[in-house]
Formats: sequence, structure tokens, C-alpha cells
Amino acid sequence: MKIAVDAMGGDNAPEAIVTGVMTAKNEFPEIEFQLYGKEDEIKKYVTDQNNITIIHTDEKVTSEDEPVRAIRRKKQASMVLAAQAVKKGEADACFSAGNTGALLAAGLFIVGRIKGIERPGLMSTLPIIGENRGFDMLDLGANAENKAEHLLKYGVLGSFYARNVRNVENPTVGLLNNGTEESKGSEVTKKAFELLSEESSVNFVGNIESRDILNGAADVVVTDGFTGNAVLKSIEGTALNITKLLKNSILDEGIKGKIGALLLKNALGGLKDEMDYAKYGGAVLFGLKSPVIKTHGATKPEAVAATIRQIHIMLDTDVVGKLTKQFEEEDTQN
Amino acid sequence: MKIAVDAMGGDNAPEAIVTGVMTAKNEFPEIEFQLYGKEDEIKKYVTDQNNITIIHTDEKVTSEDEPVRAIRRKKQASMVLAAQAVKKGEADACFSAGNTGALLAAGLFIVGRIKGIERPGLMSTLPIIGENRGFDMLDLGANAENKAEHLLKYGVLGSFYARNVRNVENPTVGLLNNGTEESKGSEVTKKAFELLSEESSVNFVGNIESRDILNGAADVVVTDGFTGNAVLKSIEGTALNITKLLKNSILDEGIKGKIGALLLKNALGGLKDEMDYAKYGGAVLFGLKSPVIKTHGATKPEAVAATIRQIHIMLDTDVVGKLTKQFEEEDTQN
Repeated sequence: MKIAVDAMGGDNAPEAIVTGVMTAKNEFPEIEFQLYGKEDEIKKYVTDQNNITIIHTDEKVTSEDEPVRAIRRKKQASMVLAAQAVKKGEADACFSAGNTGALLAAGLFIVGRIKGIERPGLMSTLPIIGENRGFDMLDLGANAENKAEHLLKYGVLGSFYARNVRNVENPTVGLLNNGTEESKGSEVTKKAFELLSEESSVNFVGNIESRDILNGAADVVVTDGFTGNAVLKSIEGTALNITKLLKNSILDEGIKGKIGALLLKNALGGLKDEMDYAKYGGAVLFGLKSPVIKTHGATKPEAVAATIRQIHIMLDTDVVGKLTKQFEEEDTQN
Repeated sequence: MKIAVDAMGGDNAPEAIVTGVMTAKNEFPEIEFQLYGKEDEIKKYVTDQNNITIIHTDEKVTSEDEPVRAIRRKKQASMVLAAQAVKKGEADACFSAGNTGALLAAGLFIVGRIKGIERPGLMSTLPIIGENRGFDMLDLGANAENKAEHLLKYGVLGSFYARNVRNVENPTVGLLNNGTEESKGSEVTKKAFELLSEESSVNFVGNIESRDILNGAADVVVTDGFTGNAVLKSIEGTALNITKLLKNSILDEGIKGKIGALLLKNALGGLKDEMDYAKYGGAVLFGLKSPVIKTHGATKPEAVAATIRQIHIMLDTDVVGKLTKQFEEEDTQN
């Protein structure tokens, strides 16, 4: 198992990335890591050389770079080299905490799509509150627009991931809509409802509303990239604001607040832990020929280790290989 | 000032509705209320007959009714009669806590659109966290699909409301998008960006992300009805789940949790109050010839009173009259 790592991507690179790799290395001695980036900077955090190869490059994609242009022009960027390694078969998967748009472009243009999947979707496992399990949602923004046919594929892709990677037996699939009734929605969601209803490989449970997804309305939530992006960022923004507000309110209470917070330390800590979906790994650009994962930009070593754990399962279960095989078979039948 | 009230709409009708009217009546002795619904049930909660007229009807729209059909067939429903009163000029505004779709249909088909506004938008004032002020967002779901031209109108409508009703001097208008860069988005948002940039009556601040709206990214947030609906319900769902989770975590801590919660009573109460946007009133179907307001279905008397306060300002400032005049003038010029 070989994983290509963009060691220079994200706010805390390379420290958080390399430190996370070191943690995961202890857990998975069978993984070989290729770290792309500035050798002298990376070396500072490599505590054990075993199974580590550093491939030096000075160039990197920044968060300000225009995605497609960066991928085309910065041929020696750490992110581009990591994707190239996957393309050439020198690595089985890659991940980066850098520029999301650029990683999507690298995935599409360098690693490439599975035949039959026109629009890979960006997918994350998000927390179902109070249940210690998650649900998969896609597309979270790989596409600014989607057709009903894409949404159907997302149902298939999400089911595949939930079944293989998260071990959910018969994952339920819900279509995000502006009401639960069958007649609800835009032209795209109405058509997608029909297509998903007819698809035998998908355990479709109908329309669901964004209000209910954190309650576990479905194991897989299917939506277009524009709406998915807006919903994910709404959840993040709301959770962040409430936490901040609570903290400030507690501080305003002075000594009383300090004692109260101390007594509720476990309760408040549990809240934070519950909302932290980095424990499930990063966002997969699903529908590519190999796993390409986006780790959160402000990522910490633990989140990097979680991403490696996720990639390990993806490679171990060969979820992408199975997916490719199924779509190739469908392609032959048609 | 005459307000037509659907006394039978919502989960707690008619008690919550009539009790809320009674509260508002003390605050605004100049308002005459017309209460539509079952006379004997309404009477139970009328503590003072002054300025109250009950118009008896046995029929009502239920939450299960198909909206357009309900409005067409249930001619004697309390909601329909309230909208009819506005149409006939017997009332200046109406509100209901009942079936949202039916109220939208009643607004469009009975009260009618302002000439030049093709697609009225459903608009609420939502809280900016920690700032004791709000922002207006539309469309929250009156339409399942919108064109760029509709989004332009929402910018104009939202500015009008913020300026007149909320007294914001030069309200900033943001376009909800999947990134802040100008080049981002779907065909609709790209076109809307252009149109909003060119509109001199709108203080357009560009694209904003749903993550930032609760932080006050703009005074007016413009989006299509599908996305707006999904974002609003995400915010509600996340806030509700976090609150529930916090409550359960505190209960799990036993006596320690009880004491901690007691010490943090103000802080936790402030959190709830901060997120409660019913204090700003209900959702306006804005772009109609008269104010038509949807109050939350699970509404309490205080929220009904807040809605009446909101309608009072809308009538007092003649925001709808001014809006009509502006669009009529534009219509004449074109």
C-alpha cells in the first residue's frame, strides 16, 4: 500500500501533515508513504525514516491559486506530483489539505474519472448527532451544477462507499429536497426522484429535508454540488457560531461561569467531539480511478491520521476497484 | 389599521393565535383585528372584545392539504377568508401560522403580485449571532427554481425591507454562492452577480458563503428558493440538534450537570434567546400588493405578538406602497 502525500498543503503544513503521517505509520506498518514537498522542512518532523520517502520539490499550490491554471502551470507543485504518482501507478492513493479546487482539478485531469461516471462527486462522512455514527453526503461542491442523472450516480456511489468503507449493510439513500412529498422540488430533483426510485441497486427512501440529515434521515444524502456546498457550510457556520456564543456567554458570567463550565467540562467536550467529523477522515472525490482525498485545510495531526485510516480502508476493501468493475460491466451491457 | 388573522392556522391554534393578538392589542390600540375561524373556540381566548371582530367559519386548511387545491376548493377556509379580506380592501394585511404552501398560494392567487415582480420571495429576518441585530434572507422557498432576474429583484426587495422596516441605512446585499470569488457559481448566480453589480439601488457586496451569514456577512442575503430553503432548514436543524445534545450531555452528568447548568443558566438561556428569530416576526411573502405573513407553525403567543409588531411597522412605513410605486414607475419608464 503506497500513499502519495502533499506535505505542503493546508494552513499547518508541513508540520501537521508529517506529524499525522508519523502517527498513522505506527498503526499501519504496511503503508509506504511518499511525502512531496520541501525536504528540509519535512525532515524536521520525520521521527522515523522507515517506510518514508521524501520527494523534494520547491513548488506548491497556494490557496489563492486559480485551481485549473495552477494544475496546468505548476507542474512541479507538491500536489501535482502526488497526483502524478497515482496516475503513473507509483502510488495507490493521494491526499492533500491544500486548495480544494486545485485538488479537484488534479483528480479530474491527472488521476482521471472512472469510465461511465461523468461527474465525480465530493463526499464526506458527517456526524449523526448523538448516535456515534455518520452519514455520507455528496456532492459537496465538486460541481456548481448537476443534472438528475448525476444525482442518480451519487446515489450509487454513496451506497458503494457506505457499504464497503463504513460497513453499512443496506444503506438508505435520501434525496435532499425542499419538502418530503414526492411532488416537491425543482425539475432536477423531480427527475432524480424518478431515476432513484427505478434504480434497483439503491435503497431509496425518498425526499429528505436538510433539517433532518443530522438526525440520521438517511445513510447517504444525495444532492447537487451547489446545494450540498451551501448546506455543509451552513451546518459548519451554525455549529461554530453556537459554540463561540456559548463560550462568550460563559466568560461573561465570570467566576460563576468558570465553575459551571468546569462542572460541565465533559458535557461541553462531548458536544465538540460529536460535531468533529474529521474523525471520519477527509472528503473523497469519489468516481475517480483511485482514491483522492481532501483533508480539511486547518487540519491537525489527528485528522491527518484519520484520513490515512480512511484511505487504508478504501484500499483494503478495494472500493474503487469494485466501483470501476461495476461501471465497466454496465458499459459493456449497454 | 386592520389586520385579518387566520385564527385556526398552526399547531397551537386558536389559543396561541388569539392570546398573541390580545397581547399585541394592548401595545397597539389603533389596530382592528378580524379573527377568522370557529367563533366558540376563538371566544374562549378573547379577554377583551374591543377592536376584535370574529368572522365565523367552520372550514380550515390543514397541514396535509395540497396547497393550490386547498385554496381553490376550500373557499370558506379561515386562511382563504383572511386573504380575501385583504384582496377586497377590508383589511390591510393578513397572517397565518398554517400550511405554508397554502398561504403562499393564497398570497399569489388571492392578494396578487405587484406589477413588475414576477416571483415574490419568502423572506425572514434571521439573527446575526452575538450582535442583537438580524439580516434578511430571501427566497426561503416560495419558488423551487429561480432565474438570475428573480435574484436581482430579491436584492431590491430585501434592501427595501431592511431600509424601511428594520431601519438599516444603506443595507449591504450579498449573493449566496459556493465561494466568494466573482467567477464562482452556477449559471444563475454568475448572471445574478452581473445584474446585481449593475443595479444602482442595491449596495451589492458580492458573493458570500452560507458559513458566514450568521456572522453578518450582509444585511440582505439573496438566493434562489431551493438553496434558501435548504440553508434555512440546515441552520434550524443544526441549532436544534446542538441544543438537544447539550441538554442530554448535561443530564448524563447527574447532580454535577444540574449544578453546572444552574450556574450557567443565564449563559444557556442567552444562547436560546439569541437563536430565536421569531422575535423579528414571521416570514413575509414579499412582492405582493399587501403584507402577507407566515408565522411559525409551532408558534407561541409571543411570536404572534412579534408578527403583529412587524406588520404594524410594515403598515406604518407603507413599505409595500412604496415598493409598488417604485415598480410602477419603472414599468412606465420601460
